[in-house]
Amino acid sequence: MEHADLREQVLEANLALGRAGLVVLTFGNASAVDGAAGVVAIKPSGVAYDRLTAAEVAVVDLETGAVVAGETRPSSDTPTHLALYRAWHDVGGVAHTHSAFATAWAQARREIPCYGTTHADHFAGAVPVTRALTAGEIGGDYERATGDVIVETFATLGLAPLEVPAVLVASHGPFTWGASVASAVENAVALEAVAAGAYRSVALTGELETIAAELHEKHFSRKHGASAYYGQPA
Amino acid sequence: MEHADLREQVLEANLALGRAGLVVLTFGNASAVDGAAGVVAIKPSGVAYDRLTAAEVAVVDLETGAVVAGETRPSSDTPTHLALYRAWHDVGGVAHTHSAFATAWAQARREIPCYGTTHADHFAGAVPVTRALTAGEIGGDYERATGDVIVETFATLGLAPLEVPAVLVASHGPFTWGASVASAVENAVALEAVAAGAYRSVALTGELETIAAELHEKHFSRKHGASAYYGQPA
Amino acid sequence: MEHADLREQVLEANLALGRAGLVVLTFGNASAVDGAAGVVAIKPSGVAYDRLTAAEVAVVDLETGAVVAGETRPSSDTPTHLALYRAWHDVGGVAHTHSAFATAWAQARREIPCYGTTHADHFAGAVPVTRALTAGEIGGDYERATGDVIVETFATLGLAPLEVPAVLVASHGPFTWGASVASAVENAVALEAVAAGAYRSVALTGELETIAAELHEKHFSRKHGASAYYGQPA
Amino acid sequence: MEHADLREQVLEANLALGRAGLVVLTFGNASAVDGAAGVVAIKPSGVAYDRLTAAEVAVVDLETGAVVAGETRPSSDTPTHLALYRAWHDVGGVAHTHSAFATAWAQARREIPCYGTTHADHFAGAVPVTRALTAGEIGGDYERATGDVIVETFATLGLAPLEVPAVLVASHGPFTWGASVASAVENAVALEAVAAGAYRSVALTGELETIAAELHEKHFSRKHGASAYYGQPA
Repeated sequence: MEHADLREQVLEANLALGRAGLVVLTFGNASAVDGAAGVVAIKPSGVAYDRLTAAEVAVVDLETGAVVAGETRPSSDTPTHLALYRAWHDVGGVAHTHSAFATAWAQARREIPCYGTTHADHFAGAVPVTRALTAGEIGGDYERATGDVIVETFATLGLAPLEVPAVLVASHGPFTWGASVASAVENAVALEAVAAGAYRSVALTGELETIAAELHEKHFSRKHGASAYYGQPA
Repeated sequence: MEHADLREQVLEANLALGRAGLVVLTFGNASAVDGAAGVVAIKPSGVAYDRLTAAEVAVVDLETGAVVAGETRPSSDTPTHLALYRAWHDVGGVAHTHSAFATAWAQARREIPCYGTTHADHFAGAVPVTRALTAGEIGGDYERATGDVIVETFATLGLAPLEVPAVLVASHGPFTWGASVASAVENAVALEAVAAGAYRSVALTGELETIAAELHEKHFSRKHGASAYYGQPA
Repeated sequence: MEHADLREQVLEANLALGRAGLVVLTFGNASAVDGAAGVVAIKPSGVAYDRLTAAEVAVVDLETGAVVAGETRPSSDTPTHLALYRAWHDVGGVAHTHSAFATAWAQARREIPCYGTTHADHFAGAVPVTRALTAGEIGGDYERATGDVIVETFATLGLAPLEVPAVLVASHGPFTWGASVASAVENAVALEAVAAGAYRSVALTGELETIAAELHEKHFSRKHGASAYYGQPA
Repeated sequence: MEHADLREQVLEANLALGRAGLVVLTFGNASAVDGAAGVVAIKPSGVAYDRLTAAEVAVVDLETGAVVAGETRPSSDTPTHLALYRAWHDVGGVAHTHSAFATAWAQARREIPCYGTTHADHFAGAVPVTRALTAGEIGGDYERATGDVIVETFATLGLAPLEVPAVLVASHGPFTWGASVASAVENAVALEAVAAGAYRSVALTGELETIAAELHEKHFSRKHGASAYYGQPA
């Protein structure tokens, strides 16, 4: 099997999304890039999670999106994933779900403010929401435009993708990413917990201030960057 | 066993409702029609899901509702299913649940507006709610009247059943359908996710606009009709 | 083992409460009465569900509460169960849980109005909430007073226990019952679904009218009494 | 294996947190102290629950925090646990989670008032919330400061740790404890049920009075202290 390692990682990541309760039916997909080979492995379109095999994982060209290995039609969201990989070279994997609470925030078209250290552990700031797509973008190359508006959002806000590895696409749902596809899935799990916690915190208080900048910085830097001391030594 | 294929499909569909967490106790039922044979197979009344067998699936006459195969009493909701099959010839299966969030919308007597692409992927417009039944309808052939009011709702709103394959019966709960009973179950799963997402979106925002018509049309047509490109080629 | 049948029924009922997700830790208990023998079998106090055996089920005297079989100390809520059995001779089993949504209504000290047919299928009217216990009742024979205030609530409201087989004890949680302990457990499951549905219906609408009396009566009588036609013939 | 018993208890407690659904990813940790030996066993940092073994449980010095057994880096929250053990000599185990509803209250920076007997069974009063940490505390020995502010909260409110064995750290999440680490885990489970019930009670009523002092005292003393009569005789 060509690109066997990449496809196995993508298979495992898609199965992990299912086990974590982040997807129902065939919603959602995860992918990984091999920048040197110029290819992306991604879930096939509309295949049930419990029947997925590594051989069914589609492999497409990073630049053109053409299928280069596998017998399946890749996820219809493939152009969104490709747009992210082409813009952000430090991203190794992307995950997309319609997870319950993150999708509620996306549908409400509200960013998720940082209300606690669970958020700060994973995301260096608020999880942003994109602008709505225009009628022209929707009628044109829609899935690519979805990726482009994510990249635009991060450029406009001056955010580094690996510091805030998640976005809410307005009226749609979350995308997360990471240095690897396993990290992208982990960020999808963390985002859903953060979205649920923020939803309930707002319900309890109406209005709520975000946490102190010092506390946010402290928790993010415990887990990320040169001064991190969370987890086992590499 | 007579009508073995139809009964196996209905058995599997009812078990799938249970596995998806859409039913508690013996609430809910799924059926499938064989239009050529003029029969409908449906869950027996009040039998626990974990003990159900294909031989216990009841088979009734599409026109009269008389039992034509099986030793069991069919679901008390059978006349509702029959009314839908007689009115809508492109419908092959029907599912009824008291799933948690869809039932909350039905009890609140509110249609579910389209707040995101999860909704647009499955339903071409808002999921409608029926009017309340009259005292005369409740006191007469109640279950048939429930089917008739669903058909009336779609006629009044000018909706095509397979474009919006779900309804909320006021003060009761959801019915879904599809070209097959498997599709009816899939729509029941999608409806519950959509109902939960809409509930939480409203909680976050109070008032919320529905999504752009272009976005709704784009997502529905990705999965349905001549220009669909979601899923694997048939 | 003395009263083996009764104890097996009570064991199975307690395990069913656990499987249905209605109890955490050692909260909750179920019991059954043998009126002819003048005994009640009930869960032992503070024993984890996953280790419970029929031999550990306590058997107590219906009138005095004295242990007549079994090596265990009976549930501390035993006097509440006994008060119900002594007042209501058609009740064969009682279940008590701290299930999530029913307990929220009990803590809010609000009855659960009938907002849909799921409710009407099981309960012939609103699920009532008791008055608060007085300081004297709390300081005296507290658990018996809890049973007495349930009986008082039904007498004051003129309710028949088997027509509304559930109550919310103010600031505490739900008790349910039935002709058998299996029916008491089924009503505990139904009550939790009804409580969750009502909670979400109120959240969607603020204020909400109860369903039409005709619809309530129709659904209750489909499942209960001489004209019932739900389920299989006995 | 040194301190084998202590490490086995800590392993089992951490696994129990996972089974109870109180942790996602690698959030959360539990520890136990051996006061005579002057050591604390605690979950290693950032290790997945499903792979954890007793040999990986870290053992640290109660006073200095230095690792005295085990090859792993202890949880980054270790200084918080140590601060509690050094201040409170009757505490044998501590658990920390980011459980969904307790974390929502912590993020909302609200104490959990006592709204029912589930609360009263486990906590002799409201579950308090700490003040926010200062920028200086966050920039200094942050995790130790987290422990110190918990101890300060209990001193200021005049609370006995084993009477209210839980706290909400503002903008962070819950810590619970007990005479043993198994009891600390049980209190974490109870706290999450209490937090969820209180959240929903407030949602139903807006404002809600706490329960009568007599009822609170009655339920707490049923399970705790000299007059307890819940559970089996020791």
